[in-house]
Amino acid sequence: MVITPRVLRGMRDFLPAQMIMRQRVIETIREVFEAHGFEPIETPVLEYFETLTGSIDDEKLIYHFEDHGGREVGLRFDLTVPLARFVAQHQNELTFPFKRYHIAPVWRADRPQRGRFREFWQCDADIVGSSSMLADADVVSVIVESLEALKIGEFTVRINHRKLLEAVARYAGVDAERAGSVYRSVDKLDKIGSEGVAAELVEHGVAADSAERIVELVGASGSPDEQFARAAAALDGIEGAKEALDELSQLFEALAASHIPESRYRFDLSLARGMGYYTGPVYEATDEEFNLGSLAGAGRYDGLVGRFSRLELPATGISLGIERIFEIIQEREGATAAASVSQVLVTVFDEERTAASLGLAADLRKAGLRAETYLEPRRSLGRQFAYAEARGIPCAAVLGPDEVERGVVGLKDIKTQEQEEFARDQVAAEVLRRTGAA
Amino acid sequence: MVITPRVLRGMRDFLPAQMIMRQRVIETIREVFEAHGFEPIETPVLEYFETLTGSIDDEKLIYHFEDHGGREVGLRFDLTVPLARFVAQHQNELTFPFKRYHIAPVWRADRPQRGRFREFWQCDADIVGSSSMLADADVVSVIVESLEALKIGEFTVRINHRKLLEAVARYAGVDAERAGSVYRSVDKLDKIGSEGVAAELVEHGVAADSAERIVELVGASGSPDEQFARAAAALDGIEGAKEALDELSQLFEALAASHIPESRYRFDLSLARGMGYYTGPVYEATDEEFNLGSLAGAGRYDGLVGRFSRLELPATGISLGIERIFEIIQEREGATAAASVSQVLVTVFDEERTAASLGLAADLRKAGLRAETYLEPRRSLGRQFAYAEARGIPCAAVLGPDEVERGVVGLKDIKTQEQEEFARDQVAAEVLRRTGAA
Repeated sequence: MVITPRVLRGMRDFLPAQMIMRQRVIETIREVFEAHGFEPIETPVLEYFETLTGSIDDEKLIYHFEDHGGREVGLRFDLTVPLARFVAQHQNELTFPFKRYHIAPVWRADRPQRGRFREFWQCDADIVGSSSMLADADVVSVIVESLEALKIGEFTVRINHRKLLEAVARYAGVDAERAGSVYRSVDKLDKIGSEGVAAELVEHGVAADSAERIVELVGASGSPDEQFARAAAALDGIEGAKEALDELSQLFEALAASHIPESRYRFDLSLARGMGYYTGPVYEATDEEFNLGSLAGAGRYDGLVGRFSRLELPATGISLGIERIFEIIQEREGATAAASVSQVLVTVFDEERTAASLGLAADLRKAGLRAETYLEPRRSLGRQFAYAEARGIPCAAVLGPDEVERGVVGLKDIKTQEQEEFARDQVAAEVLRRTGAA
Repeated sequence: MVITPRVLRGMRDFLPAQMIMRQRVIETIREVFEAHGFEPIETPVLEYFETLTGSIDDEKLIYHFEDHGGREVGLRFDLTVPLARFVAQHQNELTFPFKRYHIAPVWRADRPQRGRFREFWQCDADIVGSSSMLADADVVSVIVESLEALKIGEFTVRINHRKLLEAVARYAGVDAERAGSVYRSVDKLDKIGSEGVAAELVEHGVAADSAERIVELVGASGSPDEQFARAAAALDGIEGAKEALDELSQLFEALAASHIPESRYRFDLSLARGMGYYTGPVYEATDEEFNLGSLAGAGRYDGLVGRFSRLELPATGISLGIERIFEIIQEREGATAAASVSQVLVTVFDEERTAASLGLAADLRKAGLRAETYLEPRRSLGRQFAYAEARGIPCAAVLGPDEVERGVVGLKDIKTQEQEEFARDQVAAEVLRRTGAA
């Protein structure tokens, strides 16, 4: 019986051309992370279910089951909860502040839809064990430098502070119980406007005059500096406001000292971000060119490690929206992306000349090239060139009886179909010249 | 309530020092794979359970459960079955021969024991769509070049042919039904000797004189060439033998033509390898120095893709024993391995000098170094140096008021504790000189 080959809904195979692009993007990001001293860790895909619950809004999103030993286990749904568990478990083996990155798949039993998958990659860099704003500046720098290295286009990191939003709620006379809906509604300012936010706040039980005061402050026009000054003036004396404003000032100063261009970040009092566990500055990068939504985000979450340890460990970090970044780059590069890793296909003229071709390919690899031999020696050269074309391999080497005898190699440009002859020991240099560094 | 931080039995966290080593090993192998034109693919971790069953000896080893939509799903237990499913599903999008590699974790609900895990990585390179021995030579070359690039020490790839073992069974008069036990017993020749193999064969119902003939042929001493010649003479006229011997000759010729040193491979009539699906040459690399067992193995399996497609697609491939390789390298490098990615820690003298330190770190990164700033500006320099030491960062840069004023930077060697002074614009070159290329 032939079994129908298929993947589960919301999960994906990646073909070579996609994987080559994805690996290149990950490599670029890793270089930025490591340039800042973030180090890689890895955690198991399967965790005890109790490790995973409690910090996701909807536990139904977790793939979980009973394993062979009767343990309730689940597939991780993010990389932050495993980090908190990891830090608590290995605290005696780690040096704090602990800077780690983790680029790996996660799973959510979500409703699949365009751009949302049940298996997708996350790309996180976090610092555990520092409450200094230098740590926040470090992770914001990493967002900016990653997106710049990826040439994503125009983007800005919007920055706010969770305690400033709490102060806004207090300033408007909203009780602690309803403060959560203030964050959620204010976060939609871009989408639904001041009136929309005010209406939603009232709907959630906030008094009309309180809602008015909130949108007046949060939705005010002006430069980020003007908004910052206005918030400082309005919230003067409100509990928590000064602390938050001081921290943001320190963060902005550290970003400037780290040579992060001013155009890349700005204060935005309307930024809230959903997750309940943020306790300090929050950040979100959005592109300003194609309206593609969030490219990276996160913030400070000083309480999370405490779920697993009595040790208090402040933490801050970022998550690059790597699946969205893959999409943007795939769309931009389209068919122009390198489809193959091989720089040259060494054709096989006939069975008698097979050894000569294998030897040439070995020599080209020794010279640092990615070179493969065609594997079906009985097929015509025309078919071998077609194979190179279909694979996206830019050059083909030809070694017929005449070439072997004269110590030369024919080098065919697969795109132009032009063939030139080179001395055997010049071929590597010529392929390198045509295809760039290996 | 504090949740106990723990991982499931048989699964592992990897700390930075381990991950840095693992990533370096994977990078080295990837370079060899790509030098031969193997391209990366990725498949989902979760597959339909029916995709996974049928080619594993014990289905109980598969982690499986019913998902939220009532589908029976399982975690992949190897990368070969997903490849067969992938090729069948995407056959119209692929160019054959299709050369792919896949380096990723797999899961088995196995009994955990030393060196055996429930979550572990596999590292496979396969060629689908060629029955040529050039394909087999290509994958054997990849084993040799990977292990050489990893500097694993002395090793040999032993090579046999499944059809030759079938011929041995026929030659000894063993019926097809008992042929399977011939492979399994013969494979233990190294461990239990000729007498042990003969005894085991008899135990499995093979006639005593048949068992005798088998071990006489398979256990004969002499060089690989002599063994090959003896097998050829003894099996002359036996169905399938000539085809198998011809294929092995072609394989050996192609390896020689590809400049693979003769010392790296040899014919071994006793090599069987367990998996039932092999149909042609089989290979296994074992180290000859430390008796560490199998470092890589696999072989030709022309039938597997047929589980998912009516299209006949021959296939051959290898699996590097990457977890064992990690172990060997970890043991060898011990404490000498690079523990940190950072090349230099820029210390922070005091809060007033924070901006100077952040600026220096940014400049060092711009010069291509991996440089991080210490994140807690209020701590003593001594404590900052101790942090660099604990992290394994080799240099620390010092920028006190005096240094800032004179435009110089103190550079401390963390190991020797010696500190020298350099002009600010010379620091990057000096760190590079001390720590090697970034």
